[in-house]
Amino acid sequence: MSALDPAIADRLKRNAEGLVAAVAQQRGSGEVLMMAWMDDEALHRTLTTRKGTYYSRSRQRYWVKGETSGHVQHVHEVRLDCDGDTVLLVVDQDGAACHTGDRTCFDADVLLGTED
Amino acid sequence: MSALDPAIADRLKRNAEGLVAAVAQQRGSGEVLMMAWMDDEALHRTLTTRKGTYYSRSRQRYWVKGETSGHVQHVHEVRLDCDGDTVLLVVDQDGAACHTGDRTCFDADVLLGTED
Repeated sequence: MSALDPAIADRLKRNAEGLVAAVAQQRGSGEVLMMAWMDDEALHRTLTTRKGTYYSRSRQRYWVKGETSGHVQHVHEVRLDCDGDTVLLVVDQDGAACHTGDRTCFDADVLLGTED
Repeated sequence: MSALDPAIADRLKRNAEGLVAAVAQQRGSGEVLMMAWMDDEALHRTLTTRKGTYYSRSRQRYWVKGETSGHVQHVHEVRLDCDGDTVLLVVDQDGAACHTGDRTCFDADVLLGTED
């Protein structure tokens, strides 16, 4: 049982694992930093602490972004999409968002570049 | 069997349904417009046509964004994240990205606002 506000919990459309997708975006620049997952408790912790907090499917535990790297996400806004299955976090990201050391998780692999 | 370039297909980490997440972002403004899903064929079509093309889990079919609304997504860049499970599309979105008529799917429901 999560402490998430029931008025919010009622609007979530979770996947079969009980999770919603979470996209983190840098405030100001608009860079899309990363995509991860949250259950109700991770969303509750994010909303109440204003630190980006996710649920790791592989490790089956909560993780606060930056808890080991120091690259914390200060959360300014959280928005739920029209389907209720994705949240958008507008954050101030300290340092690299990606575990590889890249600024964002989308920096390294360009599948299609801008047309000439 | 999809026509997706095997060198790309090999880098994808699909979920149990065979899908990767796809986040669409407006070029220039950086607005995060929507989140949807792609299988290999939807990604192949997106890369080759430069029109945002997704896979609908509920309808079990492909859909080209704007095919009914006229609100087409012209795709400028496609990037794969470090995990291989999410693509970021940088697009020019004609009109509203959201089926509700909102510019983005994240406009209507603010769970947490900016601190005073």
